[in-house]
Amino acid sequence: MARIVMKFGGTSVANLDRIRNVARKVAAMLDAGHEIAVVVSAMSGETDKLVGYVREAAELYDPREYDAVVATGEQVTSGLLAIVLQSMGRRARSWSGWQLPIRTDDAHGAARILDIETAPMLAAMAAGEVAVVAGFQGVSAQGRVTTLGRGGSDTSAVALAAALKADWCDIYTDVDGVYTTDPRIVPRARKLAQITYEEMLELASVGAKVLQTRSVEMAMKHGVRVQVLSSFEDKPGTWVVDEDEIVEQELIAGVAYARNEAKITLINVADRPGVVAAIFGPLADANLNVDMIVQNVSHDTGTTDVTFTITRTDLPRTLDLLERLRDTLRYERVISDANVAKISVVGVGMKSHAGVAQRMFKALADKGINIQVISTSEIKISVLIADDYTELAVRALHSAYGLDALDAAE
Amino acid sequence: MARIVMKFGGTSVANLDRIRNVARKVAAMLDAGHEIAVVVSAMSGETDKLVGYVREAAELYDPREYDAVVATGEQVTSGLLAIVLQSMGRRARSWSGWQLPIRTDDAHGAARILDIETAPMLAAMAAGEVAVVAGFQGVSAQGRVTTLGRGGSDTSAVALAAALKADWCDIYTDVDGVYTTDPRIVPRARKLAQITYEEMLELASVGAKVLQTRSVEMAMKHGVRVQVLSSFEDKPGTWVVDEDEIVEQELIAGVAYARNEAKITLINVADRPGVVAAIFGPLADANLNVDMIVQNVSHDTGTTDVTFTITRTDLPRTLDLLERLRDTLRYERVISDANVAKISVVGVGMKSHAGVAQRMFKALADKGINIQVISTSEIKISVLIADDYTELAVRALHSAYGLDALDAAE
Repeated sequence: MARIVMKFGGTSVANLDRIRNVARKVAAMLDAGHEIAVVVSAMSGETDKLVGYVREAAELYDPREYDAVVATGEQVTSGLLAIVLQSMGRRARSWSGWQLPIRTDDAHGAARILDIETAPMLAAMAAGEVAVVAGFQGVSAQGRVTTLGRGGSDTSAVALAAALKADWCDIYTDVDGVYTTDPRIVPRARKLAQITYEEMLELASVGAKVLQTRSVEMAMKHGVRVQVLSSFEDKPGTWVVDEDEIVEQELIAGVAYARNEAKITLINVADRPGVVAAIFGPLADANLNVDMIVQNVSHDTGTTDVTFTITRTDLPRTLDLLERLRDTLRYERVISDANVAKISVVGVGMKSHAGVAQRMFKALADKGINIQVISTSEIKISVLIADDYTELAVRALHSAYGLDALDAAE
Repeated sequence: MARIVMKFGGTSVANLDRIRNVARKVAAMLDAGHEIAVVVSAMSGETDKLVGYVREAAELYDPREYDAVVATGEQVTSGLLAIVLQSMGRRARSWSGWQLPIRTDDAHGAARILDIETAPMLAAMAAGEVAVVAGFQGVSAQGRVTTLGRGGSDTSAVALAAALKADWCDIYTDVDGVYTTDPRIVPRARKLAQITYEEMLELASVGAKVLQTRSVEMAMKHGVRVQVLSSFEDKPGTWVVDEDEIVEQELIAGVAYARNEAKITLINVADRPGVVAAIFGPLADANLNVDMIVQNVSHDTGTTDVTFTITRTDLPRTLDLLERLRDTLRYERVISDANVAKISVVGVGMKSHAGVAQRMFKALADKGINIQVISTSEIKISVLIADDYTELAVRALHSAYGLDALDAAE
């Protein structure tokens, strides 16, 4: 007998037929003798519809009212799933964020969970009742409804699993697990049986959006074992667990790419103390999110070149801001390139193995792909290349690190 | 300076343009120096959609979950109206039923309001903030969301007006008041400036659905002055008030009709004690709502004829039930007629005036309309006639009681 949190996303509960499918999965786990809490998202499209109403109501809206409106989508799904479970002869009840309650801070629209009252839910679960919890939401100390930000139901589920001391947390979604890379680019991509929290975080940060980043951080912090699996198929998914749990550690867990990057280089910036802060402070103030940063060694002229990447859609706003900062920064000129992609290899194995970066550089060089910028973390190496070479680079790296499946259908 | 509750129904808040129109009306009252609480329904169509989801989820559903799902519609509207009011520079906040709270019993789907916590709302209103309250809902002692039944937002508004000791309660709707009769039948129908609670209740019971019956009962009990007016036009509506407030009392307030009636007569029922209970007990148990009942004097044979009316759509089920009760009731045969209509004249004036009924009977006789059944209350006379004569009868009575407007556009 285990205590399990099962989370179902918007596409898994998009209509009553799919909610019935979810109920069958829940009932099967309940019948196997487990104690079950379920976290549900809004039916897909509902949250967008509600957000659309709010935006239509006012451009600048009170985030407290936004939350009151948008949190209703999950309340609807939780009630409907409870009804379907009851119609299948199981005991179930819905819980809104304010009913448990799930207490959060008052950062409306992006609230953080402070604690979850679990006593009534635990008693009900012990008595065989499924607790169906509305995801994405909580309640502030002021008694106002809060939401956790888009994708927040993943975080609700992991936080609930931690609070309930659940044995694990199953995140049901529309993919069946985490892959070594995008199967649309590499048909020989393999589904990973296991991945570490750290690798999952790095993959999320470079574009492989399977779990909300904050939910992975929370799982890592509280040691919640998470399984990502499909709500449309009946097979094991990918376990996201602590490094210690992984017996056969691969060198590299996966190859990821992000195509929504743009590169900017400031040529001949005066190389004086504080110049980098003078560049990136105003960008941060303008909510322009900078990713990779490279500063070359000084020229003899006492100037330097600074290169950085931003989200591609932010390029016009960033160039505009830099133009206005020209007198302050005293750079010679700006070069920008919107046709770049970031390719990353991620794996905790590289912490204890030399030559991982070298293998990446060689594989790309063999294909004649020029590396524009390099950035590394403890378990990740990212390079910026011309966008056109994205698929070629991903395939080359996937092979170079021995990730290709032997029996994939091509 | 007055304290006012303004209530807006589903068609008045059907989309953002209409919600902006509502906000302008609210802002105008606020700017006139009044303290304002607003009660809103769900956007029209939303409640039906949510009820549809519940029914699709299961035929027999847990009414607690039904309420959790269906109450979300009003929560959405209250948040959106608060946002629009803010965008117009006014202070506003939304309140869900559980937030105030509006405490109800646990009769889910048809809950009764027990009391309303008004202190925080009154403080906010005194400080110039509009309190936007989600109608139709409350919270039980068990902390579950409850709803008041269809049309319950009228009841929310009147209950709130009573709890806030409001000076009056404006019910904005898609008609501009209460008319002497249906203007589609009688173009010379007049909008009433005033009507008593009792008359409003009788009119509601005979088909003139402007206010939910329970809201009128509550207004009468607590002495809440209610105004019914249009949310699409800027002119006074009809005041629903105590009899004492009405200076110039008309003999008759209005003529109403109901076409969804069917008549059943049981011929030669054994005339013994308890026979009426034997007929109507099983009908009530089967949720078949009986309206008028007439029992003729006994025949010499020791039998009697019993005639009653029911909702037309219930006719097949009722006939089926009576057939199964044949041996118990020992009647000779059943006659039924689905082509009947009930015509009623309503007015507190008839309490103190003789000849009101006689004028009705004469007006109908003059047009050759046969009266099949008569039923009276202290302030209402209803007759059952052949459906085909409905319009003719309504027009004849409207003239007979001097209700025709002099200047109506025909």
